[in-house]
Amino acid sequence: MTAQPFVVVAGVGPGTGASVARRFAKAYPVVLLARGTDKFEKLAQEINDQGGKAIGISADVSSAESLASAFQQIEKEFPGANAAAAVFNAAAGFVRKPFLEVTEKEFASAWEVSQKGAFLFSQHVLPFLLKHAKDSSASHPPTLIFTGATAGVKANARVAAFATSNFAKRALAISLAKEFGPEGVHVAWANIDGPIDIPGRDDYRKDLPAEQKIDPDEIAGAYWGLHVQSKRAFTNEIDIRTSVEKW
Amino acid sequence: MTAQPFVVVAGVGPGTGASVARRFAKAYPVVLLARGTDKFEKLAQEINDQGGKAIGISADVSSAESLASAFQQIEKEFPGANAAAAVFNAAAGFVRKPFLEVTEKEFASAWEVSQKGAFLFSQHVLPFLLKHAKDSSASHPPTLIFTGATAGVKANARVAAFATSNFAKRALAISLAKEFGPEGVHVAWANIDGPIDIPGRDDYRKDLPAEQKIDPDEIAGAYWGLHVQSKRAFTNEIDIRTSVEKW
Amino acid sequence: MTAQPFVVVAGVGPGTGASVARRFAKAYPVVLLARGTDKFEKLAQEINDQGGKAIGISADVSSAESLASAFQQIEKEFPGANAAAAVFNAAAGFVRKPFLEVTEKEFASAWEVSQKGAFLFSQHVLPFLLKHAKDSSASHPPTLIFTGATAGVKANARVAAFATSNFAKRALAISLAKEFGPEGVHVAWANIDGPIDIPGRDDYRKDLPAEQKIDPDEIAGAYWGLHVQSKRAFTNEIDIRTSVEKW
Amino acid sequence: MTAQPFVVVAGVGPGTGASVARRFAKAYPVVLLARGTDKFEKLAQEINDQGGKAIGISADVSSAESLASAFQQIEKEFPGANAAAAVFNAAAGFVRKPFLEVTEKEFASAWEVSQKGAFLFSQHVLPFLLKHAKDSSASHPPTLIFTGATAGVKANARVAAFATSNFAKRALAISLAKEFGPEGVHVAWANIDGPIDIPGRDDYRKDLPAEQKIDPDEIAGAYWGLHVQSKRAFTNEIDIRTSVEKW
Repeated sequence: MTAQPFVVVAGVGPGTGASVARRFAKAYPVVLLARGTDKFEKLAQEINDQGGKAIGISADVSSAESLASAFQQIEKEFPGANAAAAVFNAAAGFVRKPFLEVTEKEFASAWEVSQKGAFLFSQHVLPFLLKHAKDSSASHPPTLIFTGATAGVKANARVAAFATSNFAKRALAISLAKEFGPEGVHVAWANIDGPIDIPGRDDYRKDLPAEQKIDPDEIAGAYWGLHVQSKRAFTNEIDIRTSVEKW
Repeated sequence: MTAQPFVVVAGVGPGTGASVARRFAKAYPVVLLARGTDKFEKLAQEINDQGGKAIGISADVSSAESLASAFQQIEKEFPGANAAAAVFNAAAGFVRKPFLEVTEKEFASAWEVSQKGAFLFSQHVLPFLLKHAKDSSASHPPTLIFTGATAGVKANARVAAFATSNFAKRALAISLAKEFGPEGVHVAWANIDGPIDIPGRDDYRKDLPAEQKIDPDEIAGAYWGLHVQSKRAFTNEIDIRTSVEKW
Repeated sequence: MTAQPFVVVAGVGPGTGASVARRFAKAYPVVLLARGTDKFEKLAQEINDQGGKAIGISADVSSAESLASAFQQIEKEFPGANAAAAVFNAAAGFVRKPFLEVTEKEFASAWEVSQKGAFLFSQHVLPFLLKHAKDSSASHPPTLIFTGATAGVKANARVAAFATSNFAKRALAISLAKEFGPEGVHVAWANIDGPIDIPGRDDYRKDLPAEQKIDPDEIAGAYWGLHVQSKRAFTNEIDIRTSVEKW
Repeated sequence: MTAQPFVVVAGVGPGTGASVARRFAKAYPVVLLARGTDKFEKLAQEINDQGGKAIGISADVSSAESLASAFQQIEKEFPGANAAAAVFNAAAGFVRKPFLEVTEKEFASAWEVSQKGAFLFSQHVLPFLLKHAKDSSASHPPTLIFTGATAGVKANARVAAFATSNFAKRALAISLAKEFGPEGVHVAWANIDGPIDIPGRDDYRKDLPAEQKIDPDEIAGAYWGLHVQSKRAFTNEIDIRTSVEKW
């Protein structure tokens, strides 16, 4: 008997994380990771109400202990440790300020989440993904997707913490894509280039018309599109922006 | 009454071009452009037999006259000049040799097809795509996709003609994406990174196992995925390679 | 007896070309190539007057015949065909306009100079540079430098002809650097990122203060810096911009 | 009276750091920072013996306290806090191993030095460099150079820690170049692409012939070349490799 494949989304908020969880929940049970339970409770409820399956686990991606505990719980829920996909969507708060005013703490906290978090999450989830790569009944190759930003390819003034972390996260994604592609794991980095339209957050960039904000459901659709690619056509890097974005 | 939307594929051969035509023919009538009628006759027949609609037109993308004539014929077939998508898939023959042995003719012929051809094709098809952008009954934003190669981002020794042309084609795609995105046209460049598995061509890189050759139907699937993106989530650049490709 | 080493600069105008010629003339005789004799006559005079040696040859880099004739003349002047450095500084006129208004002629003329010209010039001059690579009395490795622009790494809207040509020229430089580096020829591409302060041309971007315009003598200094690098430390790509340039 | 300008090199070892210190010591007093005094004692002696001026200070770039103390000492030595140049040359040990075997400690130690270290060093030294930018008797604009590696632009398999840190360090350099360029500080990133020929370390890549190893004195020469550029021609990024390097 084959172990039940599942999907894990790290960094579930009301925007990209929730949309991705909903999209993948159409095909797999989903595990929602976030620091605060408020981030995933309503979403898990919603997915379960609509016939999907979702469980939320409180976890801090920047803590090896916290992640170890979360993955133990995941393995209990889904014996066989068979992950069809994993999405790393966690991000530190965005800081834009003169470089000489950035505190060591601000600089380090971007590292904690976007780099150490991405590193630890990858180390925990890759063995589960590698299992799926050997699961002959798998519908699609296992997929590990990192949500990135333009700052991963373009470093602007006054965003040193954000840019360094995003460049680094992209480097991690590429390095993992090259190492684990031949083992059947599809690793991809997504450059989300612009503000996202976060439902329920009317205050977020309220000034911007909808057409200037990226639709998170569309991001989720693109991620799903990555997941269903066969081993003979992996896309390892995509950009996503509105039609009116300057770039 | 809305004009019938259609799709035009330039550079139809047995590989990517044919797969793309088949994929888009599930939703739209397709126009197949190639220099020789042998390139599209069987394919058009096949699509028409299976309930789709395809017409082939002999055209040389590097000739303004030839393209003008082809687009006149297209307009007769599809009054209203309403193009839902266009794919530029034409490419000059690949030449790998010491730089000092490359002839001016070889260097120029890569330019003729990949650059002048891409330029002329874009100029002819963009007005049709811009019409679709204003068609309120359109299912998806009009899409212009350029098939590229790794040589568009990485210039190796002894492939000067191929690399210059691919760098240039990518530049054209990016420039057009920035100019026509705000007008609702989705322009994308695809880095097809590796050998393609061309059906019926058993002799093509016969030595390579299938897993090392990109599946052209998957390329077509990725192109379709680009086409169905909304204006709030355009992807302007993708790479496609097998899981075992070195990059 | 060793053949007299010399330097050839293609595309000599009042800006970068003239500065480069003056700089290299401190160490080598220089050959000035330009289409019109008015471009180099005064400059050659000036260099000769100041104790250097310069000869001007009228040549069209986009014509194989014209270049062949120019290099025959060069070989007569400098028997031994021993080129210490070559700088490709020719460029087509810059065109910024809506893509649909660009004429085929405009698009092609950028190709003619920046791509075919760069190709032909490289083919003609590389054998001379390869000779210098074997000249045991050479002071520095032979150097082939291509003057490029930001448009070689960033393709903006409405500059399709310029961007394609610059991307392509950069690809050529990289490909040649990889092929001829192991043979001792130092090939480099320079991204001149911003307007240049052209002496005697008060009308050029007159509105801009000097600090916003790149000093062509400094470009020449950087090119000289590339020339004197040993084979154990080649720089193949540099960018040059003012301290206040946005990038 | 103008304050005495000086240069500070962080990460002084027998290779690049020592060569850079020797080169800049021809023009300025140099401060050598390294964790162990054995790293700089002989070098400081050598520079002082040859008529230059060098002082060594033991400092850990990844510690804010250690750096603060070092810069206090610097300010005592050179009242006026007038830094003509600063070179960040510190790097964590290179680790190449399967990703799943990389320890959190290994991953974090690359961050500690290459990212936090680069961040803290920049914050400490920039006020000194900004002073030099306002020093009307300065010979050249103040320069901040980061020694990087190919891993800053290319992330390979099995080098996740090294690649993330180098991508990040490059992002920091670019961000700082954009923020502080307009204030007259010249920030640059150097991609040192290949093994370095470290004098006195016969065991280092002993198998490689000298022509395949980058000459650290040449790196120093290139850094000096960056330093002497005027504000009207800053180079913000260079690559340095041997003529035979594959790239």
